[in-house]
Amino acid sequence: MEDTYFLMKIKDASIYIKRDDLLPFSFGGNKLRIVTKAFEDMERRGCDEFISYGSESSNLNRVAAHMARSRGVACTVIFKKGRGAHEPYNELLVKESGARIVYCEGSEVRAAVEEELRRSVRDGHRPYYIYGDSNGRGNEACLVEAYVEAYEEIRDFEAKSGISFSHIFLASGTGITQSGLMAASILHGDDKKICGISVARSRDRGREAIRENMSSYMRDGRKTEVKVPAASEIFFDDRFVKGGYGCADQELSELCRQMMKGYGLPLDTTYTGKAFLGMRNIIEEEHIKGSVLFIHTGGLPGVFDAARDIMLS
Amino acid sequence: MEDTYFLMKIKDASIYIKRDDLLPFSFGGNKLRIVTKAFEDMERRGCDEFISYGSESSNLNRVAAHMARSRGVACTVIFKKGRGAHEPYNELLVKESGARIVYCEGSEVRAAVEEELRRSVRDGHRPYYIYGDSNGRGNEACLVEAYVEAYEEIRDFEAKSGISFSHIFLASGTGITQSGLMAASILHGDDKKICGISVARSRDRGREAIRENMSSYMRDGRKTEVKVPAASEIFFDDRFVKGGYGCADQELSELCRQMMKGYGLPLDTTYTGKAFLGMRNIIEEEHIKGSVLFIHTGGLPGVFDAARDIMLS
Repeated sequence: MEDTYFLMKIKDASIYIKRDDLLPFSFGGNKLRIVTKAFEDMERRGCDEFISYGSESSNLNRVAAHMARSRGVACTVIFKKGRGAHEPYNELLVKESGARIVYCEGSEVRAAVEEELRRSVRDGHRPYYIYGDSNGRGNEACLVEAYVEAYEEIRDFEAKSGISFSHIFLASGTGITQSGLMAASILHGDDKKICGISVARSRDRGREAIRENMSSYMRDGRKTEVKVPAASEIFFDDRFVKGGYGCADQELSELCRQMMKGYGLPLDTTYTGKAFLGMRNIIEEEHIKGSVLFIHTGGLPGVFDAARDIMLS
Repeated sequence: MEDTYFLMKIKDASIYIKRDDLLPFSFGGNKLRIVTKAFEDMERRGCDEFISYGSESSNLNRVAAHMARSRGVACTVIFKKGRGAHEPYNELLVKESGARIVYCEGSEVRAAVEEELRRSVRDGHRPYYIYGDSNGRGNEACLVEAYVEAYEEIRDFEAKSGISFSHIFLASGTGITQSGLMAASILHGDDKKICGISVARSRDRGREAIRENMSSYMRDGRKTEVKVPAASEIFFDDRFVKGGYGCADQELSELCRQMMKGYGLPLDTTYTGKAFLGMRNIIEEEHIKGSVLFIHTGGLPGVFDAARDIMLS
């Protein structure tokens, strides 16, 4: 069972896919790699309560809850209150995990994190917040490392297969995954184009976040002075956001359905569907030839959210 | 990404798991291996319409529909009419695949298959029914081959890791998968115990089906006279059926929830949950020590069926 394989042609490009969605714990995905790094860091620091934050359909929250439970570590999950008609599977899975759950408005995240950090200490714990401080800063280097490491797998595949990828496409939200791939590519002196397709943020905000992640990683993680790319050199395409996080339209939903039935490939409309749509358009626009890698960053429960919503509508 | 790895200890046994649920097409599973063999056979025979049959929550029907679509082959899916409150995801996925769909009562399967074979010919096709004739006989050798081949992967794992499995546990329905593993084990002269946990059938019926499958495989597939085990030598435990196909109780549902939150492992109550429950009990009863393999035979959409039913109840 190879995790990377040829999927299809799009015009003159051969699309290979790396199935990080099939990593074998809690429905896998890039968040599994990232949360695994955070747990290692937590243990190094001698902390004993994991605190996570994300939307109600957050894959990060779900993986964090399962990993905490499987390791016997206390866990608090902070959810940004959602507006969906039905509870996302990720929220249900977190509820079933036995994690402590807190809901907050999007504007109250900092206060909610601070309150939980204080509460954890009062409870006799040493809390660890995945993003660092209550502003969500300070832990970039640790999280970015996940896809610096994953990049080695891509290089291994290239070495074994003799295939060289000119472009790597992926869904980009907070930019942590993209930052890791870019940092690794720079550290190796590769000239691959790491192409982030935004799932929510504007190009400027996305680029800035990636610059910050990469700066932290190089400074704190690698202690090197490798130059972080200028914003204009960062590929972060926000034309496929479809109105915002979690939003979708007919074109996007149809693409996801086509990939399921035509290629047996589950894509969700929140993350991987947008990335695939962006890739398809950009390959056509830029007449990209040769071998291209798409990283399937997971989000399987969201695929079933969408199917359920069709079913119940 | 290894598809086989150490999962947990149960008493003195070390449980390894083979994640066939993560095979990278249409949510994988043993049915993916089986349907792949059937499509090869169909092409060898020059047929051009694939006909499948199963329950509304059938993984076989879903994989068949996706594989046909992905190869541009006409496909008819015959569903045994279900009684569930909500449409199973597998049925929805088949509907979305564009396959022709026919419903029949459980007592009318033969008539439905015959009618579809005739209709296909009228439409100018050369139909291929996955199970052979309208009694569901004749194609056992082809289907059984799938897990004769998969058994080689288990041997490869053993050779690489130095681990030797005394027992292999799996969910057993029609017995095709178990028959393949048993045939391979016999052909290799291995003394592994292949332990089928019934998901529906009585012990006698299950054992007889496995004997028939294995006889066909040895006779038609291998042209050898290898002796098929007596019924009493076939491990097919029907004590964990929980009342029948698709039935579940508190103990079973609770085990599935525990494995999800404690080990990040999705099990469904129709197939893999029953097999895991059976394995756990039998390891305790028989004081099994050493290394044991559990084959996760897939059925991911069913995991989300159960979660939805909890959510909507």
